[in-house]
Amino acid sequence: MKKETTPSHIIQQNDRPSILVVGTGAIGGYYGAQLAKAGAVVSTTHRADFSIVREHGIHIDSKNGSYHFKPAQVLQHVTEYEGFPDYILVGLKVLEEISTAEMLFPVVGPSTTIVLLQNGVEIEESVAQAFPNNELLSGLAFVCLSRTAPGHISHTCYGHLTLGRFPHGNSPAAQKIAQLFETAGIPCPVTETIALERWKKLVWNAAFNPISVLSQGTTQDILSHPASAYLVQRVMEEVCTIAEAAGYSLPEAIIQKNLEATQRMKPYKTSMLLDYLAGRSMEVEAILGNPLRAAKRHQVAAPHLETLHAVLSLLVKQGKDSDEAR
Amino acid sequence: MKKETTPSHIIQQNDRPSILVVGTGAIGGYYGAQLAKAGAVVSTTHRADFSIVREHGIHIDSKNGSYHFKPAQVLQHVTEYEGFPDYILVGLKVLEEISTAEMLFPVVGPSTTIVLLQNGVEIEESVAQAFPNNELLSGLAFVCLSRTAPGHISHTCYGHLTLGRFPHGNSPAAQKIAQLFETAGIPCPVTETIALERWKKLVWNAAFNPISVLSQGTTQDILSHPASAYLVQRVMEEVCTIAEAAGYSLPEAIIQKNLEATQRMKPYKTSMLLDYLAGRSMEVEAILGNPLRAAKRHQVAAPHLETLHAVLSLLVKQGKDSDEAR
Repeated sequence: MKKETTPSHIIQQNDRPSILVVGTGAIGGYYGAQLAKAGAVVSTTHRADFSIVREHGIHIDSKNGSYHFKPAQVLQHVTEYEGFPDYILVGLKVLEEISTAEMLFPVVGPSTTIVLLQNGVEIEESVAQAFPNNELLSGLAFVCLSRTAPGHISHTCYGHLTLGRFPHGNSPAAQKIAQLFETAGIPCPVTETIALERWKKLVWNAAFNPISVLSQGTTQDILSHPASAYLVQRVMEEVCTIAEAAGYSLPEAIIQKNLEATQRMKPYKTSMLLDYLAGRSMEVEAILGNPLRAAKRHQVAAPHLETLHAVLSLLVKQGKDSDEAR
Repeated sequence: MKKETTPSHIIQQNDRPSILVVGTGAIGGYYGAQLAKAGAVVSTTHRADFSIVREHGIHIDSKNGSYHFKPAQVLQHVTEYEGFPDYILVGLKVLEEISTAEMLFPVVGPSTTIVLLQNGVEIEESVAQAFPNNELLSGLAFVCLSRTAPGHISHTCYGHLTLGRFPHGNSPAAQKIAQLFETAGIPCPVTETIALERWKKLVWNAAFNPISVLSQGTTQDILSHPASAYLVQRVMEEVCTIAEAAGYSLPEAIIQKNLEATQRMKPYKTSMLLDYLAGRSMEVEAILGNPLRAAKRHQVAAPHLETLHAVLSLLVKQGKDSDEAR
């Protein structure tokens, strides 16, 4: 499946970097559009929305104004991409049934930089191993996005990114794509310690996402019921303990700050609850399974997280089994 | 609301004990029918099924043969009962919104024995305090029953009872009602330590009931998924630890025996899952909240049980809130 290598400097004759978005859901579509806005040549791959996007492009209805994004190439599969892109922006979910490395293989050229814009902790290793000679950036999006219809994305809050080289450090490629995002108005600090940032984001995600799915509650429902508010704190403490054992000391006030910020928010359905209600896959392993594997590796107890993972992973399995039975 | 006291020996002129079933669901209906079979004068109270039962009685479709039970008095409310019964058989669920003591008050005479045929641990105290001069028996049913239609009960497996005096000990009243059950073919050992028996039964219930609801899985689904099979064991261990701290040493092999027996069963939907799927109330506090309060009292950690309780009690609250919003 690997295409014949045509050096990317022959294809890219100008200064406009070429970018291929793989997994163009709400995240991939929104941030791909920002890069196009900043002058990059952005192409996209799609499953369900391919025909509509090829014909009509992507419409983004943003709190900052609505706009339209017409990708350079609209593809069903990465093998249809002409040449090799300077950057691949991965907006795929982190799911056991998706091998990101396999999917990217045909389109990763010798000087392609891979950017994972995905949730969870310890999600980079398989891609890093598959492409040991390529630069790998790891990024987090802090944003409220949803795909409201085929080819339509709604952007309701936040939007900033954090990017860094995997496993740590900085690089010209990181600086360059961060600069493109900044040009488009997206704050995108480059961090030397992206793994630490992933653990920091996980503090909120590992608590609110699974509890919201299992209880069908909003953030406000969860915090106004004493037993679940208490559980949120215990899970956050466990994440901090695991992160510490894994070598990432989180700021002491992080739990209190997360709780206070959530109290101030409007009642909010987590992205995992929205996925569950819509029958979409949930990133249970990236958010819960991976930190638990880290806990096991470092012999740290995390019984609350463990309970949420056990029940939620069984719920996911039940859903898959019933899909297969159809 | 208290009726004028007419000594029960005037009303009960013969040797056939009078029994009032309060909360005639599947449990109350089935065991009331057994007592009638053994010669007792059994009356029943109903909410939804009142009209149908008054006209047609209760039909029991049992693995041991089908039969029909025509109660002596069919009532909507205990105040309509003529006289005071020798026994009140309580088949009500243990729910926060139901005060069993208040409900029984009008019909408890000076020599009425109260029999709680209910699930959970530490469920007797409020009734014991409300009727300090009445004999209180506490009992557990090991049985698979369901109400298949108004006035219809299906009995598919098991059936035996365990009864004992609360808080412990034996009594002639316990012996007498146990003898009636035995006459009807229901094994009913009288135990001196009913609280211990409650903790023993809780080992299974506290693990399988909540996990089945949150994951929508059968017993087999739960045991064939490694993470949830592991969780079952952890919860069972926590129940044993709490019971021990509360003064009830459970047999060492109890967890292994429970797991093996469940493996041998056909895939089984727990009663709590059936309640959840049918939109009925779940006994979350009797099964999870009460053992957790015991854990707190004895300063024992039970983080897995705590997590299940937090999420499930929020799920219940969500359901109630949406009922109220209708």
